[in-house]
Amino acid sequence: MKIFVIKIGGNVIDDEKQLSSFLNNFAFIHDQKILVHGGGKIATELSKQLGIEAKMADGRRITDADTLKVVQMVYGGLINKNIVAQLQSRNCNAIGLSGADANIILAAKRALLQEGAEGGSVDFGFVGDVQHVETKNIVSLLNSGFTPVIAPLTHDGKGQILNTNADTMASAVSVAMAKSFEINLIFCFEKSGVLKNADDDNSVIEKMSFSDYEKYKTEKTISKGMIPKLDNAFDAIKQGVKSVVICHAKDLKKAVSGQKSGTCLN
Amino acid sequence: MKIFVIKIGGNVIDDEKQLSSFLNNFAFIHDQKILVHGGGKIATELSKQLGIEAKMADGRRITDADTLKVVQMVYGGLINKNIVAQLQSRNCNAIGLSGADANIILAAKRALLQEGAEGGSVDFGFVGDVQHVETKNIVSLLNSGFTPVIAPLTHDGKGQILNTNADTMASAVSVAMAKSFEINLIFCFEKSGVLKNADDDNSVIEKMSFSDYEKYKTEKTISKGMIPKLDNAFDAIKQGVKSVVICHAKDLKKAVSGQKSGTCLN
Repeated sequence: MKIFVIKIGGNVIDDEKQLSSFLNNFAFIHDQKILVHGGGKIATELSKQLGIEAKMADGRRITDADTLKVVQMVYGGLINKNIVAQLQSRNCNAIGLSGADANIILAAKRALLQEGAEGGSVDFGFVGDVQHVETKNIVSLLNSGFTPVIAPLTHDGKGQILNTNADTMASAVSVAMAKSFEINLIFCFEKSGVLKNADDDNSVIEKMSFSDYEKYKTEKTISKGMIPKLDNAFDAIKQGVKSVVICHAKDLKKAVSGQKSGTCLN
Repeated sequence: MKIFVIKIGGNVIDDEKQLSSFLNNFAFIHDQKILVHGGGKIATELSKQLGIEAKMADGRRITDADTLKVVQMVYGGLINKNIVAQLQSRNCNAIGLSGADANIILAAKRALLQEGAEGGSVDFGFVGDVQHVETKNIVSLLNSGFTPVIAPLTHDGKGQILNTNADTMASAVSVAMAKSFEINLIFCFEKSGVLKNADDDNSVIEKMSFSDYEKYKTEKTISKGMIPKLDNAFDAIKQGVKSVVICHAKDLKKAVSGQKSGTCLN
């Protein structure tokens, strides 16, 4: 069985028209498919409205109890259900899931980060690192005719919801499913692909091997923000995912049909 | 197949200890089971924090666009996922659903209420009246070993999430499923049952027929707040639901095992 795992980024979710057009194309895919969505600005805006201060450590956001509530509400309630309702209106039998639902993605609360001798340790709060993907339950849902729509939330198996990066989740689901199926992973976002020049949308790198990636990193050709996404992507390929494409959300149709679109990793 | 449809009210959800104890008993039920949960005070509190004014008409809350966002976040994201994660920690393979997920509950946006000649009409906003329960999809989930946990949200099939009363949803799901299964519906809340005297928790009416109900209504024995719940309950019985019990959340175990608990409708 061929399955598409498609990640849609937060900047596209924030744009009603782009999202709607993306969902049209997603609903149209005939093969089995799984959607993983990111967060977008709504959680940040809601946090501000509620007077919750964004706390950072080592450049990364800390998910304290109040922030977790906000992302749980926005990702799991607002964005996830809106996407599901919109897919249903397009005759796609979507089912919205966090990692806790049907126990599909188990995570461990991130361990304290030890800083320098004097710096003490950093607690990232309610952030989950994926431990296990229960593919059996995802397959049950697919076989029942449902299209999983996964929010970037996991659980620890002890009753706690955790905040998890959507790229990482898409990659983890793909890797786990690749043991039994042909998995094609597509990261859709607001740029045309991996760019040689972050400011020039025409500078797309069409094909990239892992050694190319290493070279680009050394040369600092690739922008810093792309590194985690590419790490996730190459990790997926190394662990058996058949193809990974990073492309603009509007190019989903091309990417699915194997036409030239964005950056193809190999 | 025997299936329990259990509704848990908002006041129990608001109390961490009561909810935890209720979920222990719920997870323990060996028969197939479906949980429908209400809202509680969290949505009202969040609305206040966000400066959203509660609008009422004809004694009923109006769900405007901002209020819908809040209930969608709180019911679908916060409460639903917390309950699911807690059930997972109790080895119950819960899956959280709105009516949009797997297209289980389709609703129609409530029509304008025509008031008196001079009063004009009232728009209840994004409130959904249940039109159709897709039992086939609920059965698929049960057969896959999942326990549906349903939030009081529906969809209109055209991409819109709607706010729907949880008692009504529990009743509608029960009635639809009763065509093929033996359905036992239990409404759990913070009182010991239907009371003859709203202030005396020992005045539980143990058995109530529809003609008893009519009599109690005429005498005004039953408090006004219970009427919609009882209308839903008797409606369910008339349409083939095998039993309906209204009891305190702590009495769930008794109600499931057929012991004396709360008010039994017949």
